[in-house]
Amino acid sequence: MSRIDEPGPAGPVRADVEEAARRLAGQVVRTPVLRSPAIDRLAGVRVLIKAENLQHGGSYKMRGASLAVGRLAAGGHGGVVAQSTGNHAVAVALAARWRGLAATVVLPADAAPTKVARARAAGARIVLADTAAERLALTRELSAATGHPVVDAYDHPDVIAGQGSASLELIEDAERAGTPLDALVLPVGGGGGAAGACLAATGRPIEVYGVEPVGCDSLARSLAAGRPTPVPPAPTIADGLRPACVGKLPFAILRTALRGVVRVDDEQIAAAFRLLLLELKVLAEPSGAAGLAGALRIAADGRHHTVGVVLTGGNVEAELVARLAADRFAQVTSVEGAAA
Amino acid sequence: MSRIDEPGPAGPVRADVEEAARRLAGQVVRTPVLRSPAIDRLAGVRVLIKAENLQHGGSYKMRGASLAVGRLAAGGHGGVVAQSTGNHAVAVALAARWRGLAATVVLPADAAPTKVARARAAGARIVLADTAAERLALTRELSAATGHPVVDAYDHPDVIAGQGSASLELIEDAERAGTPLDALVLPVGGGGGAAGACLAATGRPIEVYGVEPVGCDSLARSLAAGRPTPVPPAPTIADGLRPACVGKLPFAILRTALRGVVRVDDEQIAAAFRLLLLELKVLAEPSGAAGLAGALRIAADGRHHTVGVVLTGGNVEAELVARLAADRFAQVTSVEGAAA
Repeated sequence: MSRIDEPGPAGPVRADVEEAARRLAGQVVRTPVLRSPAIDRLAGVRVLIKAENLQHGGSYKMRGASLAVGRLAAGGHGGVVAQSTGNHAVAVALAARWRGLAATVVLPADAAPTKVARARAAGARIVLADTAAERLALTRELSAATGHPVVDAYDHPDVIAGQGSASLELIEDAERAGTPLDALVLPVGGGGGAAGACLAATGRPIEVYGVEPVGCDSLARSLAAGRPTPVPPAPTIADGLRPACVGKLPFAILRTALRGVVRVDDEQIAAAFRLLLLELKVLAEPSGAAGLAGALRIAADGRHHTVGVVLTGGNVEAELVARLAADRFAQVTSVEGAAA
Repeated sequence: MSRIDEPGPAGPVRADVEEAARRLAGQVVRTPVLRSPAIDRLAGVRVLIKAENLQHGGSYKMRGASLAVGRLAAGGHGGVVAQSTGNHAVAVALAARWRGLAATVVLPADAAPTKVARARAAGARIVLADTAAERLALTRELSAATGHPVVDAYDHPDVIAGQGSASLELIEDAERAGTPLDALVLPVGGGGGAAGACLAATGRPIEVYGVEPVGCDSLARSLAAGRPTPVPPAPTIADGLRPACVGKLPFAILRTALRGVVRVDDEQIAAAFRLLLLELKVLAEPSGAAGLAGALRIAADGRHHTVGVVLTGGNVEAELVARLAADRFAQVTSVEGAAA
């Protein structure tokens, strides 16, 4: 993806996340940190869940988009272009509307219909294309044609810092509650949120982990290879975690700061979805539930006391909710039984 | 229902709700007040939703139960007995466990299985019976046999004041946000929560409304008759709103302080459930969704600017979630379309 004009030469640092949090106060929801005794029991550790599904636009992507679009609006730009599997498109569309900018968003032709509908409802021009290569080319062409800069979904310092502000709020709220995190878990698509989490955790004894769906593990392969390594996305219910390759800027941060990557399959994601729905009482999209699925795996190693998870989003089709809620009812019941 | 020992001679007043809020701080979750642009647009007013589905035990019943059981524990009682359609039983079971008291809870044989499982998981002795009359008799007999006082689900000053603290927090948070309520809406089973809301709103220009399922309208009939009037409960998906009769103490408050009652049917409750799930991203039980269903009706009269709703609980079966999420998908989609 093309980068917009003003990235710092060395990428964002912790101070950028703190500055992002200050600038976003009042623009975004200070989402609550939620807990469930049933989830704690199942994990064997304290699990603090930052409910960014309750964010404007239904995901934490609102943070980076608001920061980036706000800076472009202040710089006199009249519009923006974005490419995304969905939530970043929704967030850029909303951020542009708030500031009176035009927005063009490029999405996969098989994007989650609710995400396409939400970006459309926010007044964005919607462009759909089949392959990732086509979408990247379209994004560049539309930016060139309109003169509107691209707000990359993850390879962008404002996006990394903005997404990182969710982790910073979680870290600070956990400290305030007397239960400081020793691990912090984020699902990984392009890696912007995980990179932001690493920056937010800088200087604290918090291990940051990424979670990828099996077969969509560009970050894990990139870390092994020492450079960003694309992976043809495999089928997954986590539609938001399908970018073909981790971003260069996130990778530069993650390769040194990330503790590790956990891979989860659809079954684990679905189980986490049901825990979030029936025990925590909130609706996660599968990409958001992947974070908890990974956290449960990480907690099982027994080295942590308090694990933070950023529940990154909640934009999901009613039909998929019905399917996920109904499947494996027995398994959820057994979790409840474990509470006895 | 039998009443416990120490109700004030004139029933609770606003000061009791304020005192309840002070005593409950730290014992219960200060739940967030949530908003959804899609719900605001549909309602045509600002709708502020107090997410008590995120409360300990999954419902606002935790408040009254914690207050009442705490007082009994301080008074040296070794156990408590409660009768409930479900959430009050869960709440009393949890409150008793926290304080090391024994709990016996009496529920309908057809209570929501998740509620029975949650009360059981909290360590309570579970007793099921078919009819309301049988459950009332059992409750009295078990109280007499054990010497443990009954914590009534609504005809109890601590319960009314405790439930009222949720409304008080909503009222105060709305004022703090610069959007003070002019209406406040609660679903009505035995009337304790609505009575608490009336007390919380005392002295402020806020109209308080109750919402009952069609055919479970004991409060509406009681207001018309001028005295508590039982109604054989009709079938409803709102399992928590099936008490046969409004409580005497709530009725004494509601008959003068309540602005009105709205009746909603299962279809309206299901539509509100889907709005809460897909737009607000939280899981309501049907009884909790009934409040929003009523608020949408009340908002339609065009006299209000900011309507508060206490989303009273979120304990619901996975199978019912699946059914409600899947049904009428077209209707939810049209709501999203309306956002354009």
